[in-house]
Amino acid sequence: MIEVLRLGHRLPRDCRISTHCCLVARAFGADKIFYSGQKDKEMEDVVKKTVKNFGGLFEIEYINDDVKFLREKKENGFKVIHLTMYGENYNIFRKKKENYLIIIGGSKVSGIFYKESDFNISIGKQPHSEVGALAVFLYYLDLKMNFDNEKIKILESKNGKYLKIKR
Amino acid sequence: MIEVLRLGHRLPRDCRISTHCCLVARAFGADKIFYSGQKDKEMEDVVKKTVKNFGGLFEIEYINDDVKFLREKKENGFKVIHLTMYGENYNIFRKKKENYLIIIGGSKVSGIFYKESDFNISIGKQPHSEVGALAVFLYYLDLKMNFDNEKIKILESKNGKYLKIKR
Repeated sequence: MIEVLRLGHRLPRDCRISTHCCLVARAFGADKIFYSGQKDKEMEDVVKKTVKNFGGLFEIEYINDDVKFLREKKENGFKVIHLTMYGENYNIFRKKKENYLIIIGGSKVSGIFYKESDFNISIGKQPHSEVGALAVFLYYLDLKMNFDNEKIKILESKNGKYLKIKR
Repeated sequence: MIEVLRLGHRLPRDCRISTHCCLVARAFGADKIFYSGQKDKEMEDVVKKTVKNFGGLFEIEYINDDVKFLREKKENGFKVIHLTMYGENYNIFRKKKENYLIIIGGSKVSGIFYKESDFNISIGKQPHSEVGALAVFLYYLDLKMNFDNEKIKILESKNGKYLKIKR
C-alpha cells in the first residue's frame, strides 16, 4: 500500500493545488490520499468522479487529527516518508516490500512531522511545489498502476484528442 | 535552451498553479518561462524573488499572442513539445542538442497547439496536473542545473530544517 497524506488543506486557497495532489497521487499509482485541515466536499467529488470515469480503486478521506493519524499508521507498520526540500536527496531511498505513507505539506509544517517521519526526503534542494515533488517521487518509485473498469480511456495520438468511451 | 510556455493564465483562478509551474520549471533546470492569458505582476515578483534568493538565471516573461509566439520560436529553430494527456508516451522522446519550447495548458487548449507542436507528449494516460507533468518531464530530461549566486542555500538534513544564508 502506498498512501499519501496532504497536510493542512485550506479553503479556498488550496483547492486547486490539493486537487492536483490528489490526481497526481492517483495517476502515478498511489492507493489512497488522506488530507487534514479543512474538509472539502467539492474536492472529494472531483476525485471520486475521476475514479468513476477513468477507473481504478483510488480513494480519498478527510482526517481530523493528522499527528494522531501518523502515529497510528506507524503502529500499523507503515514507513513514513515526508517530502520536504530540507530533507535528504530522494535517491538515497530504496523501496522495499513495505507499506508507505508519503506526507506532503501544507503551508507551515510542524516540526513533529520532521521528527516522527522515518525519512525526510527532498526532490531537489530548491523551493518548488508539493505537486511536482509528489509526481517525481511517485514516478521514481515506479509503482504498479491499476485503472481497471474505466468508462473513459484516453488514446495515444500524434496531434489530436482521442477518447474511447464505454457505454 | 529549454523554455516553457504556460498557456492562458487566469486571475485569480490560476495564481497558485501557474506559480507552481514557474517554480518547477526553474527547480528542474529550464531557462525561462513565458506565459499568456492575463498578466500577473504578483506571480512575476514571486519568481524573481525566488531567483534572487536561491540563485541561477531563470526568467519569466508575459506574452500577449501565444500562437504568434509559438510560430516565431519554430522559425528560430526551437522544437516544440506540447505536454498533454492525449499525446504519445513520453518515453518515445529522446532529447537532442536542440532548443526546446515545452508547452503546458491552460484550461481549454486550442487545436492549433496540437497541430503546430513537433511533439504531443503525455506523462501517463490519466488526467492529473500540468505541474506534475512538467516536473516529471523535466526530471526525465535530466537537465543541467545552475543555481549559482544564491543568497540562501538549503542544506540536507535527516530530520530538521537547515539553511545557509550568505550575508
